[in-house]
Amino acid sequence: MDATALWQRYQDWLYFHEGLGFYLDISRMRFDDAFVESLQPKFDKAFADMVELEKGAIANPDENRMVGHYWLRNHTLAPTPELQHEIVNTTEQIEAFAEKVKTGGIHPPRAQRFTDIISIGIGGSALGPQFVAQALAPDFPPLKIHFIDNSDPAGIDRILTHLRNSLASTLVLVISKSGGTPEPRNGMIEVKKAYAGQNLDFANYAVAITSADSNLDKLAKSEGWMATFPMYDWVGGRTSELSAVGLVPAALQGIEVGEMLEGAKEMDDATRIHDVKKNPAALLALSWYYAGNGRGEKDMVVLPYKDSLFLFSRYLQQLVMESLGKEKDLDGNTVYQGIAVYGNKGSTDQHAYVQQLREGVANFFATFIEVLEDRNGASPEIDPGVTSGDYLSGFLQGTRQALYENHRDSITVTIPQVNPRTVGALIALYERAVGFYASLVNINAYHQPGVEAGKKAAATILDLQKQVVEVLQTEKTPLSLQEIAEKANASDQIEPIYKIVRHLAANQRGVVLHGHPGEPGSLKISLS
Amino acid sequence: MDATALWQRYQDWLYFHEGLGFYLDISRMRFDDAFVESLQPKFDKAFADMVELEKGAIANPDENRMVGHYWLRNHTLAPTPELQHEIVNTTEQIEAFAEKVKTGGIHPPRAQRFTDIISIGIGGSALGPQFVAQALAPDFPPLKIHFIDNSDPAGIDRILTHLRNSLASTLVLVISKSGGTPEPRNGMIEVKKAYAGQNLDFANYAVAITSADSNLDKLAKSEGWMATFPMYDWVGGRTSELSAVGLVPAALQGIEVGEMLEGAKEMDDATRIHDVKKNPAALLALSWYYAGNGRGEKDMVVLPYKDSLFLFSRYLQQLVMESLGKEKDLDGNTVYQGIAVYGNKGSTDQHAYVQQLREGVANFFATFIEVLEDRNGASPEIDPGVTSGDYLSGFLQGTRQALYENHRDSITVTIPQVNPRTVGALIALYERAVGFYASLVNINAYHQPGVEAGKKAAATILDLQKQVVEVLQTEKTPLSLQEIAEKANASDQIEPIYKIVRHLAANQRGVVLHGHPGEPGSLKISLS
Repeated sequence: MDATALWQRYQDWLYFHEGLGFYLDISRMRFDDAFVESLQPKFDKAFADMVELEKGAIANPDENRMVGHYWLRNHTLAPTPELQHEIVNTTEQIEAFAEKVKTGGIHPPRAQRFTDIISIGIGGSALGPQFVAQALAPDFPPLKIHFIDNSDPAGIDRILTHLRNSLASTLVLVISKSGGTPEPRNGMIEVKKAYAGQNLDFANYAVAITSADSNLDKLAKSEGWMATFPMYDWVGGRTSELSAVGLVPAALQGIEVGEMLEGAKEMDDATRIHDVKKNPAALLALSWYYAGNGRGEKDMVVLPYKDSLFLFSRYLQQLVMESLGKEKDLDGNTVYQGIAVYGNKGSTDQHAYVQQLREGVANFFATFIEVLEDRNGASPEIDPGVTSGDYLSGFLQGTRQALYENHRDSITVTIPQVNPRTVGALIALYERAVGFYASLVNINAYHQPGVEAGKKAAATILDLQKQVVEVLQTEKTPLSLQEIAEKANASDQIEPIYKIVRHLAANQRGVVLHGHPGEPGSLKISLS
Repeated sequence: MDATALWQRYQDWLYFHEGLGFYLDISRMRFDDAFVESLQPKFDKAFADMVELEKGAIANPDENRMVGHYWLRNHTLAPTPELQHEIVNTTEQIEAFAEKVKTGGIHPPRAQRFTDIISIGIGGSALGPQFVAQALAPDFPPLKIHFIDNSDPAGIDRILTHLRNSLASTLVLVISKSGGTPEPRNGMIEVKKAYAGQNLDFANYAVAITSADSNLDKLAKSEGWMATFPMYDWVGGRTSELSAVGLVPAALQGIEVGEMLEGAKEMDDATRIHDVKKNPAALLALSWYYAGNGRGEKDMVVLPYKDSLFLFSRYLQQLVMESLGKEKDLDGNTVYQGIAVYGNKGSTDQHAYVQQLREGVANFFATFIEVLEDRNGASPEIDPGVTSGDYLSGFLQGTRQALYENHRDSITVTIPQVNPRTVGALIALYERAVGFYASLVNINAYHQPGVEAGKKAAATILDLQKQVVEVLQTEKTPLSLQEIAEKANASDQIEPIYKIVRHLAANQRGVVLHGHPGEPGSLKISLS
């Protein structure tokens, strides 16, 4: 396509949202009009599905749940007056609580102010808050946030060691829908011990974000924690950033949560239009479908050209892959759906894997995120008439063009600056695009059976560990792995047993391996 | 395959390195013996190629360069006495310099000690140092490191704002082979201005890591910077972590660089064995080849189950993708090679994209990185007999098993703990595996033509910006984009011109857009 035709295509497909100053350009996806037309029936269905979902239909049939994250930014859409009231009420309570904490109206027993936050959560209870903290927290926030997002003992130690002299002014958020997910539960138990170790009553520092009547909710109530904010069963983890999960940490860091909600609402409104060309989320879903033939044949590489949006690609990795990565479609057919997502930031990544994007295996499409404002204030000149920001902008343009010339497609999202409204809008845009795409390929975007299965698989290993330790406790002489397996009635579990005893031995847990570590068959195992 | 056969396969293929306590398990890659045999001739060539490379052959023919990163950890291999001497000498100088900085023998004019480091570098000059800082820096390092790894003005501002009260005790590393790469040059110029703004003489704070006689080297010498350490033309950016690029920041943070080098040396020795089954780098290359049919048909998902190894996946993303992502093979055939790499950390990612890995599109193989030691010291019990680390270990095992059962292949790397020796060994392992794989698929792993092309493309945009500004300066009345393009003799560049003026207008650079921003064709542009 020559430059004139390409410029015409650019203008024909350019989407612009005046209120948000938001642009979406899909002109470098090489679909044609016939393709767009062929998808129209699927889009008609996707638009209709979304109407039903927003009205409160059971959009997550496996779990028999409504899907209501859109209601969070427009309570009038929620299907009952009670829900509408609860949504408004929760946001108000969050803002009031944060205001009191920031101004010292609520403060810890031994200090005038809270200075830090430990946020304990995993998956959707970590990625949104992490992304938003990096994108929007002021340089010197009223409370500085630290995340425990794993069950890694050394990782927990690192956070607690850093905060050992400020634990008495550190507020702890425990974010867990059920309170039973092991990672946040483990983190909470270890952090609680750290408070106890400094003779601090954890309840005076702890805030729960959880479902009503969950184990965590009961614990927080019985111990008299500072506050509890709700997680709703109609909001999934990966779409929870604009619920209490994301709003509480954001508000405590001094981020305007009302603006985030407003930006999301504006984008929600814009993505309710039943016209593919005038609906930016539909344009994204169309592009994704085109790129991967509706089967995820191309990876989605996300390249925000702005340091503060660095975590957006990880955030999208969860939102897209957990929503779309499904074995079965809604009719029960085996489809192995999904779109792989990765990326960090530009132009940094141009000095890393963009070499492969430009020249190597053509298994992806790119999404550039462009931010028009370089910085707050004027820029010094690097060369006459040229700033650092001009370079950054030039790198983006140059890479996009080079990819196109080498037949690698790309999407470009442009926002005027990184602020609560545009971040809220980006979140809403991709939530809706994922919803549309799921309709196009006929899958349930709102469950995650593989995550549940993963929890069960780990529980099985922990049960096996108990059996193994019991066997070793009853034996006087060292046993081979096979002997342990037989005595534990787990003859087909020799390899997991080997991993278990190797791990216990490496951690001074009273298990000793005799023999050559490189030859598991030679090992004899005993208690020390 | 039943449990007994699988356990036998596990033992048959288990690689163990006694000195490093290192294990590699490729039993869950479903290749058979015939496949291994079929690759033997390619491996014979790969082993021979590596011998030549280590002897000083021109292994990077495009750039007419030797490839000598292996010499950095065993100077006796370097092809001349001069090189051998320089390698030893440089490491000694780095250690001596770091010691003096840490103990205050070298200190800034207005403070007793340096407290912080700003490290300015991109690509290989950032990813290695970032990975190693996260993996190995003590909780309270003698100097705390901050990275400027982009040309993002807001990102630079964030670092400088955080350090505004400690700039007088902040040491600046400028890492750039040529000194001409725009991102580090821009960062240096902006940081230099910040020092000047506080009446601090930058030369008293600055250290250059660059090639002899580069522009940066000349600048450092003419201004009298604190120190300069060499980058060699026989060490590529992505394999430079164990050169001055990585050793200087590591040593300043109190990391044992001698141990890192020693671990790498031990792994280098182990990966010199000309027997696939006894060579862990060959086993990795074999597995990658099997997974993607030697054409990168499967993505490599890297899952370290340890927070401190979180950046290893990003580090590998560059090492693998920049090395292997090539359009041409060594005979000039168009091959579009590469392997896409992504990942963050386990078990965190199990609550994100592992849903898709388990159930969705089967376009990947996984690499688990397991660390046997949970933490320094004993762990509290979460449940009777169960620690957080047991959970983490259980999650790894459970996910690996579930992937296997769902016909998703995986590799497992196991190290006893995260320490300088094992980190050095991991770096060396993957450097060599990439080298072998490149031989198997007959490409040059040591150049990056796409990165150079990206720099040129951006320079073209900046030139166009100058022309556009000149056109606007000579005109009294607002011009359309087309008119600007014609006057700038760039009629085929309307779209880049639109992007340029939009960016200038958004940054108060004296350019005004009249008309509807969503309709570029309607715009008239003038200087304000």
